[in-house]
Amino acid sequence: MNHLGTSKLWDTKKRGRQRRLARAASLRLDAQITPEQIVPLLQAVIEPGDRVCLEGNNQKQADFLADSLAACDPQQLHHLHMVQSVLALPSHLDLFENGIASRLDFSFSGPQGGRLARLVQDKQIEIGAIHTYLELFGRYFTDLTPNVCLIAAQAADAAGNLYTGPNTEDTPAIVEATAFRSGIVIAQVNERVDTLPRVDIPADWVDFTVVAPRPNYIEPLFTRDPAQITEVQILMAMMAIKGIYAEYGVQRLNHGIGFDTAAIELLLPTYATDLGLKGKICTHWALNPHPTLIPAIESGCVESIHSFGSEVGMENYIAARPDVFFTGRDGSMRSNRAFSQTAGLYACDMFIGSTLQIDLAGNSSTATTGRITGFGGAPNMGSDPHGRRHASAAWLKAGREAGGPDAIRGRKLVVQTVETFREHMTPVFVEELDAWQLKATMEAELPPIMIYGDDVTHIVTEEGIANLLLCRSAQERAQAIRGVAGFTPVGMARDRRMVENLRDRGVVRRPEDLGIDPRLATRDMLAARSVKDLVKWSGDLYTPPSRFRNW
Amino acid sequence: MNHLGTSKLWDTKKRGRQRRLARAASLRLDAQITPEQIVPLLQAVIEPGDRVCLEGNNQKQADFLADSLAACDPQQLHHLHMVQSVLALPSHLDLFENGIASRLDFSFSGPQGGRLARLVQDKQIEIGAIHTYLELFGRYFTDLTPNVCLIAAQAADAAGNLYTGPNTEDTPAIVEATAFRSGIVIAQVNERVDTLPRVDIPADWVDFTVVAPRPNYIEPLFTRDPAQITEVQILMAMMAIKGIYAEYGVQRLNHGIGFDTAAIELLLPTYATDLGLKGKICTHWALNPHPTLIPAIESGCVESIHSFGSEVGMENYIAARPDVFFTGRDGSMRSNRAFSQTAGLYACDMFIGSTLQIDLAGNSSTATTGRITGFGGAPNMGSDPHGRRHASAAWLKAGREAGGPDAIRGRKLVVQTVETFREHMTPVFVEELDAWQLKATMEAELPPIMIYGDDVTHIVTEEGIANLLLCRSAQERAQAIRGVAGFTPVGMARDRRMVENLRDRGVVRRPEDLGIDPRLATRDMLAARSVKDLVKWSGDLYTPPSRFRNW
Repeated sequence: MNHLGTSKLWDTKKRGRQRRLARAASLRLDAQITPEQIVPLLQAVIEPGDRVCLEGNNQKQADFLADSLAACDPQQLHHLHMVQSVLALPSHLDLFENGIASRLDFSFSGPQGGRLARLVQDKQIEIGAIHTYLELFGRYFTDLTPNVCLIAAQAADAAGNLYTGPNTEDTPAIVEATAFRSGIVIAQVNERVDTLPRVDIPADWVDFTVVAPRPNYIEPLFTRDPAQITEVQILMAMMAIKGIYAEYGVQRLNHGIGFDTAAIELLLPTYATDLGLKGKICTHWALNPHPTLIPAIESGCVESIHSFGSEVGMENYIAARPDVFFTGRDGSMRSNRAFSQTAGLYACDMFIGSTLQIDLAGNSSTATTGRITGFGGAPNMGSDPHGRRHASAAWLKAGREAGGPDAIRGRKLVVQTVETFREHMTPVFVEELDAWQLKATMEAELPPIMIYGDDVTHIVTEEGIANLLLCRSAQERAQAIRGVAGFTPVGMARDRRMVENLRDRGVVRRPEDLGIDPRLATRDMLAARSVKDLVKWSGDLYTPPSRFRNW
Repeated sequence: MNHLGTSKLWDTKKRGRQRRLARAASLRLDAQITPEQIVPLLQAVIEPGDRVCLEGNNQKQADFLADSLAACDPQQLHHLHMVQSVLALPSHLDLFENGIASRLDFSFSGPQGGRLARLVQDKQIEIGAIHTYLELFGRYFTDLTPNVCLIAAQAADAAGNLYTGPNTEDTPAIVEATAFRSGIVIAQVNERVDTLPRVDIPADWVDFTVVAPRPNYIEPLFTRDPAQITEVQILMAMMAIKGIYAEYGVQRLNHGIGFDTAAIELLLPTYATDLGLKGKICTHWALNPHPTLIPAIESGCVESIHSFGSEVGMENYIAARPDVFFTGRDGSMRSNRAFSQTAGLYACDMFIGSTLQIDLAGNSSTATTGRITGFGGAPNMGSDPHGRRHASAAWLKAGREAGGPDAIRGRKLVVQTVETFREHMTPVFVEELDAWQLKATMEAELPPIMIYGDDVTHIVTEEGIANLLLCRSAQERAQAIRGVAGFTPVGMARDRRMVENLRDRGVVRRPEDLGIDPRLATRDMLAARSVKDLVKWSGDLYTPPSRFRNW
């Protein structure tokens, strides 16, 4: 046996940690550092080639630490491998332009998608992979464990305990993976206080804290102004509620971001309640605190919401509605992206969201030419979890539609709601996704598809609903999709007879098939028609960011 | 708008919490209670009909709290809805026999499976659903949030901070769901100390702690004595390594419990290393600290292991190998079932495990007549995650085998390794799973299938390997399964010509097709042939429980 003769070291990571901490100590940098000390600290504790997790979340950004890392000397820090949920800030990409970082594993890049694509084309950035959030977290505990993480919290106490409060988001997953594999945890905080409202991250998981010169940036990503909801969106929302939510009895669900789903939220206290659906649909949510859900909550339609993150301006409202939201003993919300994504995957019967392109197999993607955006949580929540074993009425009905009476399992409802044309009259329905071109550009193994067609159960457009569960062949599926694709070239190329056949079978349904009069789809149907209305519904507890205030 | 007129209370859960705490206070029960006070405390803070999460994990048991709850007065506490990962102890079922609890949502019942089936038949227990662990955790944050949780930790300090140490397991998920929805958290601890080695659960998430009269029970569930590994299992392990691990280059994986996979672990430093596979397979694991993996670790085959829970006797060995295991600054391991299951789902390329029955579609189940056992983590880890977006060589190859060169995604490898007959010469391969009878007995909507056939990619038996990815029809699939089903009735009923055809195509492979001489499959191949050998490999750091010591 070779164990007797080996001289292998088993604590190289621990020694690495000690080496880094010793360098910091030699610069007289202790656990509480000043903003001026942050660049020296980063240069002391990060080593070239390190895997660094920079907390760029869907909303909360460790922006001071991102700026500081980008200000480091590329002679000292280079070839970093960045792992982060979201690439949202210019500094996230400056790191690559400056020669500090070279490799990236991430989930979502939203506003930076165009610049990211250019950097990839210029070979200044090597993309490991684009993930869904929960997948990336899984890799933090497997083969992408960070050496150093740079995170954001609301407050720290003298011992180094952290309060992340409503915007906890990804922090627990990041810190746990780093702290328990001999990594270094550095937190920017907005304030240092004697006593925290509560402890979200224990002090002995944290190495350094710094009070940032300004509060960390938080993007109000989930705020949709009801004033911008169109009558087409209201018609689609009515179809979704009557043709899907009511038919399947969907109680546990997630909504994507967008005006399409905001319209549905604002019809729950009006149209859905008039249909007698209160308490029968939409009772339990994995959802960020959408302001457009306030009227439904106030009307008693909602029992429970667990959130990935918070939403700017919703803090007081959430604190006043602890029966609905997950809140701590201090009264403020605790969000947690890992658990909310888990709930979205396994405990929800429906995911409904929008996309930029859909092909004839139902594959969808938000990746369009010249932009590498990633998909965030959609691939996870928009997938049928084969590991699910508990039944619900909605899940069983969908399973039986797909598999017949002998189905051995149910199906998650995965709904795409899109207008057939998006801005600039670009058709959403396409013969081939731009993702295939992007595959070539990125030299990726596979095209960046957001939701696979065989997981999609329904597509809702202004023309009607296609129920893909009832399709029995790829050809039927393609015609069902063409059948709701309106005046796009894909829609015009339909086989009219086959689409009418599908309509006879209920695979394609028009508003009139659902007993919906499109003339009733007016803005009068909305429970709130402005942000001001939402504030009023909330009893003035909701305080929207100024950019959403016009009164 | 109706928000002006409503008088709806929005803090009934918080008031419920205050009411419960006030009852405890009126009995002079403060945060640190004595063992004698536990029954009065439970009767004070639990209300009839409550949803109670009793920490019954795969290994760690809050056994003192379970016994105490079973000793409560059913006149006071009744109709409880128990939610728990594992039903392992007699007291877990006593609760139902005593009339304290009536409803159950769970994941696994192992040794209590027979008694559970009888209680269900006698209508003394109503089963909500059987889940996979991660699914149940998701529901804790959706529609199965506990009102009260009863958990186990190693130690508490005076403030109520908890140290869960190596056996953290489910505790963070349970406590987070309960504490942040106005629930009550009660922890039994083995000791109260001035300073904890580290904080795993912050004090302000915990309400009451009690030092239990004896340390909490921990089941050494993952210890397999190499002495019991048979030559048939060694042959199957050789086939799996050469025919699957090597061919796909499987680096990130999970192994189920059992002698079949223990044999594979013990061949990594010998057979696999001789094949030149060191560093090319089995480098990153989502796995409990299996003692049978010690020789592979010591031989430098393993880079990283993240664990669901710990394993009795492995504590010192783990602490001495921080490069491999996730450990805290105190030196001891931090396990976390939620994150390890997430890694198993999304970051692993393979799950391999055993089962009791497989049908001709490849559906498998450990549920047999007269026993309701549940499936633990297998449905989660043994499913192809459609939300996965990052590529690996193993995943891409499997995807292309299934979908051809135009495949738009990869596939997880899901391998079932079984001998064709289990104990008492019961055939594993069956025309119909017992799960269908159980469905009727349990009045369930669906049969309790552990892993769906269409997620299974390979079946390994002593007769050979069936690669289901390469099957192009249900008929081929059935014949491939018959083709490795040996002398079971299912195997004898094969179409010999079709099976030979499948063999020509590499769908069915015999040991000789893989260049394996069955005569070489002897126990000499094992890196360790006894528990004592494992201890030796570990440099005496592994201290097995006495039941595994015979020297």
